[in-house]
Amino acid sequence: MAGTVTVPGASVPSTPLLKDELDIVIPTIRNLDFLEMWRPFFQPYHLIIVQDGDPTKTIKVPEGFDYELYNRNDINRILGPKASCISFKDSACRCFGYMVSKKKYIYTIDDDCFVQLLLIESDTVAKDPSGKDINALEQHIKNLLSPSTPFFFNTLYDPYREGADFVRGYPFSLREGAHTAVSHGLWLNIPDYDAPTQLVKPKERNERYVDAVMTIPKGTLFPMCGMNLAFDRNLIGPAMYFGLMGDGQPIGRYDDMWAGWCVKVICDHLSLGVKTGLPYIWHSKASNPFVNLKKEYKGIFWQEDIIPFFQNVTIPKECDTVQKCYIYLSGQVKEKLGKIDPYFVKLADAMVTWIEAWDELNPTAAAKNGKAK
Amino acid sequence: MAGTVTVPGASVPSTPLLKDELDIVIPTIRNLDFLEMWRPFFQPYHLIIVQDGDPTKTIKVPEGFDYELYNRNDINRILGPKASCISFKDSACRCFGYMVSKKKYIYTIDDDCFVQLLLIESDTVAKDPSGKDINALEQHIKNLLSPSTPFFFNTLYDPYREGADFVRGYPFSLREGAHTAVSHGLWLNIPDYDAPTQLVKPKERNERYVDAVMTIPKGTLFPMCGMNLAFDRNLIGPAMYFGLMGDGQPIGRYDDMWAGWCVKVICDHLSLGVKTGLPYIWHSKASNPFVNLKKEYKGIFWQEDIIPFFQNVTIPKECDTVQKCYIYLSGQVKEKLGKIDPYFVKLADAMVTWIEAWDELNPTAAAKNGKAK
Repeated sequence: MAGTVTVPGASVPSTPLLKDELDIVIPTIRNLDFLEMWRPFFQPYHLIIVQDGDPTKTIKVPEGFDYELYNRNDINRILGPKASCISFKDSACRCFGYMVSKKKYIYTIDDDCFVQLLLIESDTVAKDPSGKDINALEQHIKNLLSPSTPFFFNTLYDPYREGADFVRGYPFSLREGAHTAVSHGLWLNIPDYDAPTQLVKPKERNERYVDAVMTIPKGTLFPMCGMNLAFDRNLIGPAMYFGLMGDGQPIGRYDDMWAGWCVKVICDHLSLGVKTGLPYIWHSKASNPFVNLKKEYKGIFWQEDIIPFFQNVTIPKECDTVQKCYIYLSGQVKEKLGKIDPYFVKLADAMVTWIEAWDELNPTAAAKNGKAK
Repeated sequence: MAGTVTVPGASVPSTPLLKDELDIVIPTIRNLDFLEMWRPFFQPYHLIIVQDGDPTKTIKVPEGFDYELYNRNDINRILGPKASCISFKDSACRCFGYMVSKKKYIYTIDDDCFVQLLLIESDTVAKDPSGKDINALEQHIKNLLSPSTPFFFNTLYDPYREGADFVRGYPFSLREGAHTAVSHGLWLNIPDYDAPTQLVKPKERNERYVDAVMTIPKGTLFPMCGMNLAFDRNLIGPAMYFGLMGDGQPIGRYDDMWAGWCVKVICDHLSLGVKTGLPYIWHSKASNPFVNLKKEYKGIFWQEDIIPFFQNVTIPKECDTVQKCYIYLSGQVKEKLGKIDPYFVKLADAMVTWIEAWDELNPTAAAKNGKAK
């Protein structure tokens, strides 16, 4: 069935980059067009689909894809009591896919995100200024394979990109950069706004194509969106926990944010890089702002305390693995954020469970971390 | 003479923004085309030209411009013995213009930088994606008049720009932002590289138009280039000292870098914002890399110590004005960097002289700072 959908102008490399080293993780697939649209790009890769709702419903994956599908029953069977750390009826369940993957790299994307080239055909927004074709996955891989520059700002953005370099005044000792752990891609059309902003600006669309990839500097937090995200599992995987959201939990829509804050603080501590910018995907559908407000409203209060917490937390030097950093963070979450709401005590415990489950499913990596049982 | 040069497609607002509140400071003018090219944009404003070399040579300013011109004799006459803090035979002398200005805003530009629209006519690079005309000065003013976001990163760049906002997960308490002190513009064509990079990549041109303005996060240093720079004199002017460069000094080409490091550390301390990105200017001519290497080479070593110094310096809380911060910094420079080379002792003294001269020429501002004599 390969090639039945052609995406005009899309560049599909004949030898896909990192074919055997990258898994694509998708939380449920409600929209069958989704996979057809991405077929030329995704078909060479292995997909891990994590079904977020009723396990009796069957997801139909079109022919020709190499995939594994997990529903709630599978998660319970594989993790046993530790399954409690995986959210139910929420796309936060996708992080189970990160855990069961055996690959070095993960790309995760929402099922309402399409190939950016659809947009390129419109006259209302910019084309890729170089005139080259766009392949979101390829751009993420390039981002992950080239270093980051978290220790000093380069005004011409990514200095490793063709046609760019470090500018005058950039210390030479810092030009090797740092390993890149995360590539955060953006969205055209529907921007990733919170419910209040959605309500106030229902018609706003992101039509600005910013042709840049940049490193988020050390010490700076950012709102990490899980819609179009790639990361190096070996470098940061155990910190990519999407928390407790959805069914039975007091909040939603903070899964990726929570992961992003933990990830950034740990990357800063371990001198790893986080990039944001290209690639864009086309975000087709705004979620319902009223539903979102219900999910978010506690988070809107809580984040006023969560952000200062993450801005001020200092991970001790002894924490030299992601697991150790994450366990330390969970202790701090319990101690400092537990005062705000009992939810954070539960979340802190789930963070520990997550690491235990991760190490159980990834015994080699756990052994490297001196944590094998 | 207005309008004798028309710049195709350039938008010149009929009522120039901040006409009575902004001075344009230019270090010498070797190239007569320079002012003609900028005439539609610059003619409404007052120009301050600071001649960097032989005072007996006369600079011919074309008719129709409102300007004042200072040569070395003028600087010596006005500052007396304090003139020692102003560099000679180096474009660093431009900072004298910042001091004598009576306006709230300064725009400074090199005389080999042209209107960006010249480039727009070429097919090799991107157009302004919105299809709108470009006016570098207008963009700088917009940058300065809208807030910065130094405390948290917004992934859709400037949240105050039309069509953009704060994304999900951005704390609401931080959405007012901070006052913007600096707008750092970029360059197409010849990038601002150091001599080693120029030597290695003689043919590299910056052809990437990145349609973004962003705040450099708090705690992050950057290489500030003086080629295309605007700032709020009231907020940060006394820190915009371009140091001791050129004639009789062991280095050159670190004037703007030095200012940038001091400025950024002080902005971070006083919760002021620094933006970088748009507008671009067209940088026409690469300076000679061999000459540059001679000027730079000590700086290339020294910056390896200077950067950690600025990354680690903590300004005490009592320093609640730019002047107090700057005097504190000068003491730290003498103590910490003086060990590297006696040049830094001399520079530290010049920093103090600069502040004394600033306060003498700006007595009202000095009085506000509790420093009037």
